[in-house]
Amino acid sequence: MKEHIILASASPRRRELLSSMGLEYKVVVSDADESAVSAEGVSPDIYVQELALIKAAAAAKQVMKDRKAVIISADTIVVNGGKILGKPADAQEAFDMLSALSGHGHKVYTGCCVMRIRDGKTVCRSIATDVYFKELSEDKIWRYIATGEPADKAGAYGIQGLGGMLVERIDGDYQNVVGLSVSALADTLEKDFDIYIF
Amino acid sequence: MKEHIILASASPRRRELLSSMGLEYKVVVSDADESAVSAEGVSPDIYVQELALIKAAAAAKQVMKDRKAVIISADTIVVNGGKILGKPADAQEAFDMLSALSGHGHKVYTGCCVMRIRDGKTVCRSIATDVYFKELSEDKIWRYIATGEPADKAGAYGIQGLGGMLVERIDGDYQNVVGLSVSALADTLEKDFDIYIF
Repeated sequence: MKEHIILASASPRRRELLSSMGLEYKVVVSDADESAVSAEGVSPDIYVQELALIKAAAAAKQVMKDRKAVIISADTIVVNGGKILGKPADAQEAFDMLSALSGHGHKVYTGCCVMRIRDGKTVCRSIATDVYFKELSEDKIWRYIATGEPADKAGAYGIQGLGGMLVERIDGDYQNVVGLSVSALADTLEKDFDIYIF
Repeated sequence: MKEHIILASASPRRRELLSSMGLEYKVVVSDADESAVSAEGVSPDIYVQELALIKAAAAAKQVMKDRKAVIISADTIVVNGGKILGKPADAQEAFDMLSALSGHGHKVYTGCCVMRIRDGKTVCRSIATDVYFKELSEDKIWRYIATGEPADKAGAYGIQGLGGMLVERIDGDYQNVVGLSVSALADTLEKDFDIYIF
């Protein structure tokens, strides 16, 4: 049986990552209510898995009739000094976030779930990557904000775009920072679902 | 004066990386004679800078009349246990390389030169990134070789393609493994050539 891979994410970056695996897939954008999950009292790696899980569950409602469907969902958060950074509300908040990230390391967590409709089997895991920023001048930060890139990004930067030039180095999985660890996903598909990429 | 950026590399991956910086550039493929440089008696970081330097010099011959030209060149080598891995000659050599990389770390060095025609100013630097491979079964290695991806890649893998699924984690700059550290190049352009990306 050839599975129908469903990506439960509207992110163009996650689409590119799945495509880089050579996977054929359909995108199902779900109306997951992320406010149903709280970051209070749980560790970031559990929190981000829960965010991914509601996305998978919301997509499952839409594709429930497809017995060959296997849903892949993911969510990414940026954590700096114990504080979760979401998408900045405005330029000033973007400036505050980037100033806080300047010159040291923070963590990016991506939670990813694979959910098989046929039997409900679901495997979630989260991965953390350390990202170290260069020392950024205020001027540099404002010029980066002026490019428009920070607006819709958690932590106010995108590592795969111009934001890559703010980054000194990473420790861990790069794609995990972009939005999904292709390497960890391949392991999960292989070991838990017997789906081989190659 | 607006500089004319020249990329002295035929690599589609380096083209994509420069494009991701938002840079406008022209590609000049040079006929650099890499055999003029020897790895004997020099450290890998110096060797790879020399490889990048001959590429820049060969391109300079072609664009010498353009006083606004600024050449960017790069070369990448994979070093495993002190041994430089080039492109595999055949499937068996690809298998031997990937078997040698399996289950532990190796280093990828990229040397990058920026050469300004106007005054000959040239700045070269090299960066090393640690790449840690998963433990790979023989079967997995042969299936990866069968995808055709290893054939034209130093070290017999491409991290930005299916080969990313062989990688456990990296320590350092990701783009440096793909073929050019966009982050380090931006620093060089800014500090040494007063060229600002943003």
